[in-house]
Amino acid sequence: MSRSDLPHRVHVVGAGLLGTSAGLALTRAGCAVTLEDTSPTAGRLAADMGAGTLSAAHPDTELVIVAAPPDVAADVIVAQLRALPEATVTDVASVKGVILERVRAATERHELDRYIGSHPMAGRERSGAVSARVDLFEARPWVICSDDDTPPERLAQVVAVAEAAGATVLHLEPEFHDSSVARVSHAPQVVASLMAAQLIEMPVDGIALAGQGLRDVIRIAASDPGLWTQILAGNAHEVRDVLQHVRADLDAVIDALSLDAGGYATLAQTIAAGNEGHQRVPGKHGQAPTVYGTVTVVVGDEPGGLARVFTDVHQLGINIEDVRIDHATGHRLGSLDIMVLPDRVQDLVTGLSERGWRLPDHAEQEAPAPAAPHAGPPADG
Amino acid sequence: MSRSDLPHRVHVVGAGLLGTSAGLALTRAGCAVTLEDTSPTAGRLAADMGAGTLSAAHPDTELVIVAAPPDVAADVIVAQLRALPEATVTDVASVKGVILERVRAATERHELDRYIGSHPMAGRERSGAVSARVDLFEARPWVICSDDDTPPERLAQVVAVAEAAGATVLHLEPEFHDSSVARVSHAPQVVASLMAAQLIEMPVDGIALAGQGLRDVIRIAASDPGLWTQILAGNAHEVRDVLQHVRADLDAVIDALSLDAGGYATLAQTIAAGNEGHQRVPGKHGQAPTVYGTVTVVVGDEPGGLARVFTDVHQLGINIEDVRIDHATGHRLGSLDIMVLPDRVQDLVTGLSERGWRLPDHAEQEAPAPAAPHAGPPADG
Repeated sequence: MSRSDLPHRVHVVGAGLLGTSAGLALTRAGCAVTLEDTSPTAGRLAADMGAGTLSAAHPDTELVIVAAPPDVAADVIVAQLRALPEATVTDVASVKGVILERVRAATERHELDRYIGSHPMAGRERSGAVSARVDLFEARPWVICSDDDTPPERLAQVVAVAEAAGATVLHLEPEFHDSSVARVSHAPQVVASLMAAQLIEMPVDGIALAGQGLRDVIRIAASDPGLWTQILAGNAHEVRDVLQHVRADLDAVIDALSLDAGGYATLAQTIAAGNEGHQRVPGKHGQAPTVYGTVTVVVGDEPGGLARVFTDVHQLGINIEDVRIDHATGHRLGSLDIMVLPDRVQDLVTGLSERGWRLPDHAEQEAPAPAAPHAGPPADG
Repeated sequence: MSRSDLPHRVHVVGAGLLGTSAGLALTRAGCAVTLEDTSPTAGRLAADMGAGTLSAAHPDTELVIVAAPPDVAADVIVAQLRALPEATVTDVASVKGVILERVRAATERHELDRYIGSHPMAGRERSGAVSARVDLFEARPWVICSDDDTPPERLAQVVAVAEAAGATVLHLEPEFHDSSVARVSHAPQVVASLMAAQLIEMPVDGIALAGQGLRDVIRIAASDPGLWTQILAGNAHEVRDVLQHVRADLDAVIDALSLDAGGYATLAQTIAAGNEGHQRVPGKHGQAPTVYGTVTVVVGDEPGGLARVFTDVHQLGINIEDVRIDHATGHRLGSLDIMVLPDRVQDLVTGLSERGWRLPDHAEQEAPAPAAPHAGPPADG
């Protein structure tokens, strides 16, 4: 899409995380953005942050972005189609099929043609205008739902907005979108919440055994109940379908745990199927999964430890693909997993060992160090 | 426990990840370690790595550590109790109740008194002697199961070994241990595997919508099917109990997704209960959960970016509590979440902004920069 497709006047309805972030990005891109919110405080905050001018839509508005909560999005879309009879209207709700149905039921064909649903995949744990960021959409997928009847010049406007915000556009059917997010986002949310809820009644002594595995599984269980009720209700049919498959598989595991004939095979197949599903999810940057080599370094907790190790890696000329801090329990001692391309592992091990770092995985490869072989390098200040 | 409780002669049966790591740690602590494995190659590798001498147990062995797979652990424990009639025998399997039952059924009281089960909570995704590390147990919980009949001097030996390996000892009943790990480790493994398995049949276009939330939920789905079949079978009763609770809650969600009367309330309560369970899990270092302040920095992918930002944070005199690299999709662009104590957030924002870093969360707080306000700092080499 060419830059000339970017609408000059954009109106944003809803000054939450997504609406305010869109306003910031489009203002930066040179659009004249107006915005409104049912909460005067939220609207004022978004305007103060530079997301646009708090006002009604200009009559010449070319594009409206409805960033209202999912349960009112359809009504707001219809109202905007009526209020601005020339404008294209899009929304950013995380469900698409049910909103399209409701808009279709309430509009004429000439109105419906001006609605193009979309979904930027860019949530955060935090919500509200105060959490907005100009590059929230940068390098994220932004799904746009169109069909053969969608006027190309209106589709081009929505694509131009997504690209101006730095997003990667994906064209998907609403039904395909909804069934996909049910699997990669909505059902995982339910599963994480259900698992976390099993911990409520546990004694503290038992929870003390929790490790990083549990923490990862339930991290998104901290999500907002109000928003997620709307999302799950808005995609109820698809989420239900996935969860019924999960239940069938769960029933099989529960039966297998009686350890009757075939039980061991079912348990092994369950974990193996998880391996297979896990391998299908792309790694960093949306590429095919890369198996990085991991080098573990003991860094301790003192200030400067991370800076020193990253500086040393940089000086070795090795690019870091990912990092993970290992959360030890009960002591203040940390180790860092540094992930690099497999052919750089040996260089990293040799280089860091020579600089005095403790690499427990590679103890047998460390240079002999007669004095204090397990001490880290001296602090640099 | 005093240092003098540490046994002089220790025999390790099983040269896998845990046995070899224990041999490395106890050799470092000054013990005379012998080790054996049914696989000559594994035993030779462990010995070459410095985990001990490959040989039968010395007749004066004071402590045997059984680090055999869970499904043969009880038989090996009984054999060692018979072979060394004076020695204390412990094991490191991740289930305790079923092993104790089997040992009890096969031994006399005077033999049983010499068995003390334990479980160091220190697994890795990798297995085998080749993955062993001298500090695998450092700062990790090491559960020891004793009762009123356990001879104190034998208990002291096992505690001394755990502490010599750097672990934090927790004294728990076998039943309490098993029901706790069912909740914090075994059931989460099943749930993660079941969720990941739902992705096997998905089209690639749908999986492209996956974000960090899904990746975290299913990370441990990459675990080894053979080992996990043994673990789940060994703790079948407790895991089944937790999974039946999960199934009951899952059924309620599936019903609620019909959106009949009360459905919305059930959905909201499910997510809220997940919030409550999530809050119970301790954060880093086993402390009560701390709500760190998070500052997001755009670092890009070029070599040295991480080194520069960590060096800048260090020079600002601010301690980093945790970090997370945000995995953008489709582009090679990364941002880093730096977590610090809440009262250091403002200093970090101000300091990094002054040094030219892009902090999208805090755009409104950046110092005015007329030229290239969104550019990162220049590369340092």
